[in-house]
Amino acid sequence: MLETMLQNVRQAAPLVHNITNYVTVNDCANILLACGASPIMADDPDDAEEITAVCSALNLNIGTLNARTIPAMERAGRRANALHHPILLDPVGAGASSLRTNTAACLLDELHIAAVRGNVSEIRALAEGATATRGVDAALEDRVTEENLAEAAAFARAFARRTGAVVAMTGAIDVVADADRAYAVRNGCAMMGRITGAGCMLSAMTAAYLAANRETPLEACLAAVCAMGVCGEIARDETLLAQAGNATFRTHLIDAVYNLTPECLKERARYELL
Amino acid sequence: MLETMLQNVRQAAPLVHNITNYVTVNDCANILLACGASPIMADDPDDAEEITAVCSALNLNIGTLNARTIPAMERAGRRANALHHPILLDPVGAGASSLRTNTAACLLDELHIAAVRGNVSEIRALAEGATATRGVDAALEDRVTEENLAEAAAFARAFARRTGAVVAMTGAIDVVADADRAYAVRNGCAMMGRITGAGCMLSAMTAAYLAANRETPLEACLAAVCAMGVCGEIARDETLLAQAGNATFRTHLIDAVYNLTPECLKERARYELL
Amino acid sequence: MLETMLQNVRQAAPLVHNITNYVTVNDCANILLACGASPIMADDPDDAEEITAVCSALNLNIGTLNARTIPAMERAGRRANALHHPILLDPVGAGASSLRTNTAACLLDELHIAAVRGNVSEIRALAEGATATRGVDAALEDRVTEENLAEAAAFARAFARRTGAVVAMTGAIDVVADADRAYAVRNGCAMMGRITGAGCMLSAMTAAYLAANRETPLEACLAAVCAMGVCGEIARDETLLAQAGNATFRTHLIDAVYNLTPECLKERARYELL
Repeated sequence: MLETMLQNVRQAAPLVHNITNYVTVNDCANILLACGASPIMADDPDDAEEITAVCSALNLNIGTLNARTIPAMERAGRRANALHHPILLDPVGAGASSLRTNTAACLLDELHIAAVRGNVSEIRALAEGATATRGVDAALEDRVTEENLAEAAAFARAFARRTGAVVAMTGAIDVVADADRAYAVRNGCAMMGRITGAGCMLSAMTAAYLAANRETPLEACLAAVCAMGVCGEIARDETLLAQAGNATFRTHLIDAVYNLTPECLKERARYELL
Repeated sequence: MLETMLQNVRQAAPLVHNITNYVTVNDCANILLACGASPIMADDPDDAEEITAVCSALNLNIGTLNARTIPAMERAGRRANALHHPILLDPVGAGASSLRTNTAACLLDELHIAAVRGNVSEIRALAEGATATRGVDAALEDRVTEENLAEAAAFARAFARRTGAVVAMTGAIDVVADADRAYAVRNGCAMMGRITGAGCMLSAMTAAYLAANRETPLEACLAAVCAMGVCGEIARDETLLAQAGNATFRTHLIDAVYNLTPECLKERARYELL
Repeated sequence: MLETMLQNVRQAAPLVHNITNYVTVNDCANILLACGASPIMADDPDDAEEITAVCSALNLNIGTLNARTIPAMERAGRRANALHHPILLDPVGAGASSLRTNTAACLLDELHIAAVRGNVSEIRALAEGATATRGVDAALEDRVTEENLAEAAAFARAFARRTGAVVAMTGAIDVVADADRAYAVRNGCAMMGRITGAGCMLSAMTAAYLAANRETPLEACLAAVCAMGVCGEIARDETLLAQAGNATFRTHLIDAVYNLTPECLKERARYELL
């Protein structure tokens, strides 16, 4: 199943419109190219609507949001909805400031969001208005473990039911859920937290997977999460072998996405229906 | 001839002012340093004029243009013109939105532009107001091939005549033309389309070549286009050898520009006067 | 002494708020992760105060400053002062434009700045209002040499006395001074000037060192400057061995920070009290 999702991205080569932060925007563009899609970025309110119209999906990432990009997100989002393009929302830092929490909540409220991808603290801040986020990283007490996995899955399903979005809640164990089903994914590695942008890149790639797999959004998100996790493991092995560091890891991670085969994804993906 | 252009860049070490998109801005800075120039970025209208005054060339790139950077481009452009600094215009995504098409057209109209560097669809959008661009990539039907090369050269010469700018229209075959002469360049590789920023980097580097070769803008643009193509080939060979991906390719591409010798450029450049 | 500073960063893992330029922001984020800290970026005036409140230090870098980010710097700065978080000021391009010179001077005037990190021309522009900066690089006539080192140290101490900030003035020889003491650091290499962001990365890392070593700001800055210099040397050796270029150097530089041990820092740091 996952390998079909990947092949569909390579075949459709969807153009993805990103309104995203300037910290990891280059990585997001390169990961989209690596997975077989194409990126375009446009965040002026007067540019965003037309640009989104020529694309197949919209990736809204609120890291470094500002007074100019928030209306661009809203206008692009409404146009994407009118054109039935899937929208991915990445609520970077929701819970860390009221501007972020409120903007993410408004976007989720005003737009039909196909999928939300964030860490557990960000998703909780969105779902509960709680604010325990430590900057852009998940709070320790929020981490999904084997012990609280069933609870986390129930929470993700409930949030998916309320919003109509697939929920991809990533961390040491990832949970990918719609209203009815939740998957746990056990791919990935700690080194993904030692580069900036692992989450942002996953969000951009997930938007491409959603664009190329319109009928199966849950499986599309699951495939993207597994693909990123598998590539993280490949990159970690190569980085350790070279006794290198996080900058080399970032290069290997994007390279691994570029070289990922459907067979490799199928063989190495470790997910289960909860 | 080309090797002199490169040596002049290394010798003059021109400072290039870039008002450019935030997706590939880091790559643009590093490619300028790699080729022997120095970058500076300043895009606030109140900062751009003074900064351009201490530079030797201005690179205007409209990717991620916005309401703040458009007036900065205009003010910096007028100052650069007054100081007789060459201006390079990169009409990223012209044809994909009216804001981009109109802004590029206005800049071309209001300023004396020394060179325009874009893909065929972007240049066509500028020349004809046509809008067939697929985001930031050239539309398939626009591609320059051996069959339509003479026609593409005539188009580029005519556009150069009308605008007074050297036209560098890049793709599988590149065309570099002024009002009287057109060159075809057959360097480069497909992998340059699998990273973000190959075009933006070429534009930044071309601005440096224009700054260091004031009397020969056509040859300066030709040399920059050949240099980038040759370095793309070197980087592709290294990337394939390492069985790596697009992130490694980007690193090798910038490295190749850093290490490019005049002899290597002379030997590997494949261009012809049409 | 230096090794304790480094260990404290790894142990405290401080969250550093950066309001910085979009050219090198990704490198700043990755170097912070490499040294053991965590980055967050937020530059909208309505976001910056709350974000800085959840952090332990604030890094203000005026490269690509604009009408939106200047008030964000002021508001974040005032909040950081109120919370007694150390603020690092990097006056990128001070002396090259009045907006930059004036903004840096205002921030230094209005806020309590724990440390200023810049090249000699930038620091001179701040101290004297002189404007001999060549873009973002130090002017040749400003360079610190063995001949004028005592004079440079006296200048740095005097500027530190006037501002209350530790002054880290970097170049071929670095000078790190407070009102009473000045150190010379002889680590580093010329290749650090062939990538964009070596200075910005050092500033971000210095903010992390300040956060984790609150009682010893001079030693914290000295340790960060030595660490970056040592890592530059390691990266240069690896780059030359591979016959690579500046893009590879950047990767190795961040990797070296990631892998730097307290022992290696102690052994390779070359500094002296002047």
